[in-house]
Amino acid sequence: MSYTIGLDYGTNSVRCVIVDTSNGRELGTAIYEYETGQAGIILDSSDHNVARQNPADYLKGIEVTIAGAIAEAKKADSKFDSKAIVGIGVDTTGSTPLPVDKDGTPLAMLDAYKANPNAHAWLWKDHTGYAEASEITELAKKEHPEYLAKCGGTYSSEWFFSKILHCLRTAPEIFDAAYTWVEHADWIPAVLTGTDHPDKIKRCRCAAGHKAMFNDAWGGYPNADFLKKLNSKLGELRKTLGDTTYAIDQAAGNLTEEWAKKLDLTAGIPVAIGAFDAHLGAVGSGIKPGTLVKIIGTSTCDLVVAPMSTKLPDIPGICGIVEGSVLPDCYGLEAGQSAVGDIFNWFVNYIQPGGKDVGTHVALTEKAAKLKPGQSGLLALDWNNGNRTILVDQRLTGLLLGQTLHTKPEEIYRALIEATAFGALAIINRFEEYGVKISEVVNCGGIAEKNAMVMQIYADITGREMKVSRSAQTCALGSAVAAAVVGGAHSDYDTAQAAMCGIKDITYKPIPENHAVYKKLYALYKQLHDALGLKDAPGQMSNIMKDLLDIKEEANS
Amino acid sequence: MSYTIGLDYGTNSVRCVIVDTSNGRELGTAIYEYETGQAGIILDSSDHNVARQNPADYLKGIEVTIAGAIAEAKKADSKFDSKAIVGIGVDTTGSTPLPVDKDGTPLAMLDAYKANPNAHAWLWKDHTGYAEASEITELAKKEHPEYLAKCGGTYSSEWFFSKILHCLRTAPEIFDAAYTWVEHADWIPAVLTGTDHPDKIKRCRCAAGHKAMFNDAWGGYPNADFLKKLNSKLGELRKTLGDTTYAIDQAAGNLTEEWAKKLDLTAGIPVAIGAFDAHLGAVGSGIKPGTLVKIIGTSTCDLVVAPMSTKLPDIPGICGIVEGSVLPDCYGLEAGQSAVGDIFNWFVNYIQPGGKDVGTHVALTEKAAKLKPGQSGLLALDWNNGNRTILVDQRLTGLLLGQTLHTKPEEIYRALIEATAFGALAIINRFEEYGVKISEVVNCGGIAEKNAMVMQIYADITGREMKVSRSAQTCALGSAVAAAVVGGAHSDYDTAQAAMCGIKDITYKPIPENHAVYKKLYALYKQLHDALGLKDAPGQMSNIMKDLLDIKEEANS
Repeated sequence: MSYTIGLDYGTNSVRCVIVDTSNGRELGTAIYEYETGQAGIILDSSDHNVARQNPADYLKGIEVTIAGAIAEAKKADSKFDSKAIVGIGVDTTGSTPLPVDKDGTPLAMLDAYKANPNAHAWLWKDHTGYAEASEITELAKKEHPEYLAKCGGTYSSEWFFSKILHCLRTAPEIFDAAYTWVEHADWIPAVLTGTDHPDKIKRCRCAAGHKAMFNDAWGGYPNADFLKKLNSKLGELRKTLGDTTYAIDQAAGNLTEEWAKKLDLTAGIPVAIGAFDAHLGAVGSGIKPGTLVKIIGTSTCDLVVAPMSTKLPDIPGICGIVEGSVLPDCYGLEAGQSAVGDIFNWFVNYIQPGGKDVGTHVALTEKAAKLKPGQSGLLALDWNNGNRTILVDQRLTGLLLGQTLHTKPEEIYRALIEATAFGALAIINRFEEYGVKISEVVNCGGIAEKNAMVMQIYADITGREMKVSRSAQTCALGSAVAAAVVGGAHSDYDTAQAAMCGIKDITYKPIPENHAVYKKLYALYKQLHDALGLKDAPGQMSNIMKDLLDIKEEANS
Repeated sequence: MSYTIGLDYGTNSVRCVIVDTSNGRELGTAIYEYETGQAGIILDSSDHNVARQNPADYLKGIEVTIAGAIAEAKKADSKFDSKAIVGIGVDTTGSTPLPVDKDGTPLAMLDAYKANPNAHAWLWKDHTGYAEASEITELAKKEHPEYLAKCGGTYSSEWFFSKILHCLRTAPEIFDAAYTWVEHADWIPAVLTGTDHPDKIKRCRCAAGHKAMFNDAWGGYPNADFLKKLNSKLGELRKTLGDTTYAIDQAAGNLTEEWAKKLDLTAGIPVAIGAFDAHLGAVGSGIKPGTLVKIIGTSTCDLVVAPMSTKLPDIPGICGIVEGSVLPDCYGLEAGQSAVGDIFNWFVNYIQPGGKDVGTHVALTEKAAKLKPGQSGLLALDWNNGNRTILVDQRLTGLLLGQTLHTKPEEIYRALIEATAFGALAIINRFEEYGVKISEVVNCGGIAEKNAMVMQIYADITGREMKVSRSAQTCALGSAVAAAVVGGAHSDYDTAQAAMCGIKDITYKPIPENHAVYKKLYALYKQLHDALGLKDAPGQMSNIMKDLLDIKEEANS
């Protein structure tokens, strides 16, 4: 009997789960909500693009959640012994880089900088670097188009170098004080394994490949000359990043005596190389070639893997195609939507239709579920937080079309859900257009777990069965799978996933008549999507409202 | 000392005002809310296009409001004597035709039909005849393009023949039972003056010219052959309409003994030819060549007059250019927006942001007034109830664009107000593009009276001073002016308006920096307007959101 720990750092909290490596049973779970800022995020009321986090919250989360999960596991099974834990896996949000000094200490944890938001972790959804993202894109297009070819053709404001360059430009004192910048996913394993210099931090392939243009084909990270053209200091930073990155079947190191004591674990157990939450969520959902795993939460991450034996073309608009970023022997392909649950939350929390006690998710879902596809005459674009795939443009915004004097809140709520499903379908289609066949869709995350209407709409709109991952905490489970591989409980990912992962009995199959209506609506969504999202899109848009009304009448007849 | 009565039939109620003809002083006012249906409108929950009214409410309204206004006038001035009232003027909504039998009795008032909504008055905002409107437009384009040239190029579902043809098609028993159809504005004067056969009803130039393609140039109403091609029975109806129509400087007849007794008025006083509320509202606002009068309520009607000596071109998208439809010696030009206050009401009543006690007009106005132009990054189209001018398309719908995860209700509220102001500007521009110079804008109606923020936004967006008509009941006042002319208190409209009408001291002047921002936003509005509203519009739309964000950033910087 052996167990592993999965540590899953989300946007607002960190979760620990202790898993039985033989069958995936989750013995104990604990959650720690970050204390700093608003729901764990340091905001700036004058700039909505700002989103930072306090690394001290990350550290406190390790202790609180591992202790909590062990306590719960002991309650669940009196024979449970935390010394039987054979490894730790870690996943985090990303790209969430933080500046560290030459000891590897985050600047945010030094007295001199702790009040400065720029010294903190730059959370994935910080978009302050959008101008720098454009600049990086433009330079790469001109000088190294290959850098962009593997990350969808456009470098995002959410990514590593955009954030660092923005800091360099707008808060040079912080940039200068930093020895280097480390992804959250790399920093936690480094801490647990006692890495004593930033040069020794083992950076993960996942973050480097998807967010920092790392590829062995051109010697790892972008070369110093390229970075120098953006800013000479950025060029100098290049040497602190090293030339090697690691997949999750590797260990970052071994748990130090000090941490082992603090956490009541066995010293020396391996800590797996970190990865992004979505990537390990995909592992926890049993990802394999042909399976699309959708992690649906405030935003959505879509992951696909393809055997390295496959000849894969570059796929425009897909955020990343990276060797070994999900499973060790596969290409990992990442796509996603910048806001999904966040759009529904916006409507409920900001608009509060009918008042906050009336316009709840539960109440709106109940009413929206009674509507037929097309009935409201509404169509929305899911761009309230930009479009990550396939337009790769954080500056796009939302759109709602088709309102009359009778439009009701539940109709808008449903239109927003449908918009995210149309966005999901656009991504699936893009994969398949470039030869990556999707034969199965497995969903995980809070929305997949909790909202059957959303899942049914996704099935009806995509025309595909929506399966749901068995575990309610797939990212943490994926980290525990990684821990099981580095901890020796399983020899490889195939056997580890077979033993530890699974699918729920309940799945959502497309209803043909709904799918037929949604096919028409999708054509209009795509028309709006292209007209408003593609640069230099041809064509006119005058048919959209009429077609919508025809569909509406048909639905009502 | 002489007085006149203005009777103003609105969408939900009828109002009577008693006015001193020497100075426009309003001595007494009374309102009667129609009793039938929902806020006076018979609706159909399965078809939002249906909007009917009970003519019995119209009759009851005469007695209740005139008695009420006389009582109030007596309270205001103990020497007031209702026998000093020298004439009655009437305005109504329109096109609001009702089927009558050969005695002129509305079918809705006969036992056999009173339960049938199709036998009632078809309120202006009934859109059931949209398919018939297209059919009439198509046929006229082919056979009599001149019919359309004076009414904006497209026949509307709100108008006379669309409604009658739709009744003929969908409720033939009602059509067959009717001797003819009469506009609400013609029926009330006919009733008060004891007109004993429908053939003797004096139909007003205003309704006939603006809504029924009447023009002396082609012998009055469309010819019977044309109407026969739509339906042979419609062709037969033609002869019941006659060939003559009348301007408001004419009397429909004289008040009968019976009505005089019932109303405590002098028998034999003249009742002016009726007209639409907006047209007499324009009169009450002191309309003259160069003045645009905007009647801003749930919807908006825009009126302009031009001397008949002017050579006027046809103006595409302007609902009507009709000789003598407003002032006797001028062309009356009518434009409008299908929903203005109704859009704001939709947001407050249907969406209820924050709850119905929180998201009130007052609260949203207070917050929205603090926003700077462009600050929200939002842009809306004012088409929740279609577009009356200049696209003439009832099947267009609303659009809201630019939402983020932080968009607030007051931002949307303001964007909706701005959208209606952009729509207003599009109309002004259209007039001027065709040589009808607008040198003054006078507003009236509830919103102009009550909401200073709306008026300021209109000034800022149009770049023109917004004046407000002195009377709070300009339509009723306009009817009283018409009564004063037919009653002999004034020799003509010039002197009557000079004596009885005026402008408020408070006006709204454009703030140059706001206007500068709104000029940029208007360009985007126009781009969306054309892309989504014009058939076969060329071009792409990908710049819109980016330009909006640039403007937003600029506004926030």
